[in-house]
Amino acid sequence: MSEFSFLDRLRHRANSQKHSARVLTGIGDDASIIAQRVDRDLIVTTDLLVEGVDFYRGATPARLLGHKTLAVSLSDIAAMGGRPFWSFLSMGMARADWTSNFKDEFFDGYFALADRFGVTLAGGDVSETKESIVIDSIVLGEVNSGAAIKRSGARAGDQIYVTGKLGGAAAGLKLIENGARVNQRSEVKDQSSERNDQQRGSSPTVRESAFDREAEKSDDDSIQSLLLRQLRPSPRVGWGIVLGDERLATAMIDISDGLSSDLNHLCRESNAGALIESSSIPLDDDVKKLCGRRALDPLALALHGGEDFELLFSVPPENVSRLPRRVDGVPISHIGAITGPSEVRIRERNRIWTLTPQGFEHFRN
Amino acid sequence: MSEFSFLDRLRHRANSQKHSARVLTGIGDDASIIAQRVDRDLIVTTDLLVEGVDFYRGATPARLLGHKTLAVSLSDIAAMGGRPFWSFLSMGMARADWTSNFKDEFFDGYFALADRFGVTLAGGDVSETKESIVIDSIVLGEVNSGAAIKRSGARAGDQIYVTGKLGGAAAGLKLIENGARVNQRSEVKDQSSERNDQQRGSSPTVRESAFDREAEKSDDDSIQSLLLRQLRPSPRVGWGIVLGDERLATAMIDISDGLSSDLNHLCRESNAGALIESSSIPLDDDVKKLCGRRALDPLALALHGGEDFELLFSVPPENVSRLPRRVDGVPISHIGAITGPSEVRIRERNRIWTLTPQGFEHFRN
Repeated sequence: MSEFSFLDRLRHRANSQKHSARVLTGIGDDASIIAQRVDRDLIVTTDLLVEGVDFYRGATPARLLGHKTLAVSLSDIAAMGGRPFWSFLSMGMARADWTSNFKDEFFDGYFALADRFGVTLAGGDVSETKESIVIDSIVLGEVNSGAAIKRSGARAGDQIYVTGKLGGAAAGLKLIENGARVNQRSEVKDQSSERNDQQRGSSPTVRESAFDREAEKSDDDSIQSLLLRQLRPSPRVGWGIVLGDERLATAMIDISDGLSSDLNHLCRESNAGALIESSSIPLDDDVKKLCGRRALDPLALALHGGEDFELLFSVPPENVSRLPRRVDGVPISHIGAITGPSEVRIRERNRIWTLTPQGFEHFRN
Repeated sequence: MSEFSFLDRLRHRANSQKHSARVLTGIGDDASIIAQRVDRDLIVTTDLLVEGVDFYRGATPARLLGHKTLAVSLSDIAAMGGRPFWSFLSMGMARADWTSNFKDEFFDGYFALADRFGVTLAGGDVSETKESIVIDSIVLGEVNSGAAIKRSGARAGDQIYVTGKLGGAAAGLKLIENGARVNQRSEVKDQSSERNDQQRGSSPTVRESAFDREAEKSDDDSIQSLLLRQLRPSPRVGWGIVLGDERLATAMIDISDGLSSDLNHLCRESNAGALIESSSIPLDDDVKKLCGRRALDPLALALHGGEDFELLFSVPPENVSRLPRRVDGVPISHIGAITGPSEVRIRERNRIWTLTPQGFEHFRN
C-alpha cells in the first residue's frame, strides 16, 4: 500500500469518528483547521517515542503501542487540568512496516482509546525510516481561561494527592526485561474491564474473563496485569477534567519519570519543598504480591519507577473537602504536604529521609 | 550536557523571544498553554524529517537544517492562508549528538527564522535515538474564521498563480547528489540578502557579498544559490497572510512534491481540472543558466521537482485585479486556469499534454 492510499484510509477512518465538531479540516490538506472559542485556553503537548529507546517492538504488540502512544499525551493534557479534543500523529516506519499489518493494529489501539475520550485524529505526517519506528504524538486540549494547572502553583500547606496505585508500570518493565510477554487473552480481558460496555458477557471470551475476575488472581494473572500497566497505561483524563473544571488543585504533574523525580520537578517549579509519608504511598496490589516473594521492595518501585501515568497534585486545605473520592472509579491517596522551600523529604516510620530524584533509569534493586 | 540542562537552556532562549504574547506557559510543563481568541480558526501542521530519507547530514549544515525544519511547516501554514504564531519541536538524536555542537547550530538557524516571522517556540519533546536524527516540526497559526484556504475550493474559470520561481530546489538536490556542497560564505551571503536589516554593510564579509551581487553571477555562485534553494527554502509567509486576510484565493497548496503532483492534488480535492501554459511557468534563473550547458530540461525540473515551497493558488476572475504584484519582494506568475472536471493538462506551443503527477522521486533526466 502506498503512503497515499494509507493516508486516504486513515482520513476516512478519522472522518468517521463521531466527535469531530470544530475540526473544520482534518487529514488531507496542508494543515488542519480548528475553530477557536472564547474563554478557553489551548493546551498542546508532544511526545516522541523511539523504537529501541522508548519501546521494544518484540515486547509491545502494535495495538498496545497505538494505545500507549495516545495515552502518554492524554496524560499530559490531564496533568494540566485540560480536556483533550484533537490529536495529530507523525509516524516514521521502514518500508516493510508500511506494507505489514503493523499500522492497522496500531491504529486499532489508537482509535479505541481516542474514541473512548472523544478525541479526533485531525492530522499528522508520515515518513519512511531506515529501520526503527518513530512516532510523535501530539494532542491539543482546552481548559477554561486561566484554569490550567501548572507545576508551579504549589504553596506551603497544600496537601499532596496521587491518583491510583504506583509501581505497577516499573514492575511490568522489569518483567519485560526478564522475558515476560503479554498474552492476547489478557489484552482482551483488560479491554473489556476498562470499557465497561454492553459487550460484556456477550462473547465467550469476555464472559470467561469476567468470571476470572471473581476468583483470586493467579501469579500469571498478576504478571499480565503488571505488563499491561507498562504497555497499556490508563491516562487519568477524568481526574484532569474534574480538577481543572473545579479549580481544586494548585499544581499538578503526571508521574512519567517516577514519583521521586516528578515530585521534585513540581517542587522545583513551585519553589517549595514537600514532606510525604511512606506508609501513605499507594502500592500496586500485584507489585506487593509478587515482590514479597522475590525480595524486591515495592516501595522503591512506587517511589522511583516511572510510567505509572498517575496524577500527582497539590490541593489547598480549603479545597480538600470538595475533592471527589473517585473519578471514573479511580481513587486518590493523600500522601503528604507541601512545605516552604526545602528538599523533598519522606517520613518512614520515625525517620525522615531526603527523597532525591531517581528516575527508573537509575533505579537499582 | 544532560537532557535537562539542554531543555533549561532552550526554555531560557525561547522565553527571551520577544513575541510570546498569548503563550501562557511554554517549555517546561507537561504541556503548553495558549490563550484562544474569538473569530479565529486555529491552523495546525506537523512535518516529520528523518535523517537519510528527508535530509542527508553530510550535505546539510546543522544551521540550515534548523532553518528548513521550521520553513517547511511555515510553508504549510502559508498554504492555508494563515499567520504562524507558535511552534513545537520533537527531536530525537543519538547520545553523541546531544553533546556535540549540532543542536546549538540547529537552533541558531531555527530561531533566526522563527524570530523573522514572530514565531514562538512553545514546547516539544526530546528523546534519544540509536543513530539517526529525527525531527518532528509542529507549527500552529491562525486565520480569520472561515477564511482558511483549502485545497478543495477551486472552481472552473479560476486563474492559477504561483509565487516565485520553480525548479531551483530540485536542481539543488541533484547537485548535492553529485557531490556539491554549500560553503559557509554563501550561507552568510544568503542570510544577509534575505534579512535586509541594518547590519548590511557593517561587516566586511557582508559588504563583500553585497558587492558580489552587483556583478554577474559566476557558475559557482549559481551552484551555491541552487544548493540554498534546496537547503534553505523561503516559506512564502507574507503571501499566505495576504491571500488569507484579503480572501483572494479559492484554493491553495504549497509546492512540496512538485508542481505536477501538487496541482493534481489541488484539482483532485476540488473535483476540477486545469490547463496551464508551459511558457508561463516561472523557471529559476540559475536553473536556466546551468541546465542549458548540461542538457538538462529546466521545464522538467520546474514541473516535477519538489521542495520549492512556493505557493500555488487559484483566484476567481473578479479578484484578479486585487492581487498585489509582489509581497515581500516575491512576484507571482499567472500560469493557467482551472477547468471543469478533467485531467490536468499543459499546453506546450500548439500541443496539449496530460500533466501526470511526477514527484521528484520519479523524475528522469
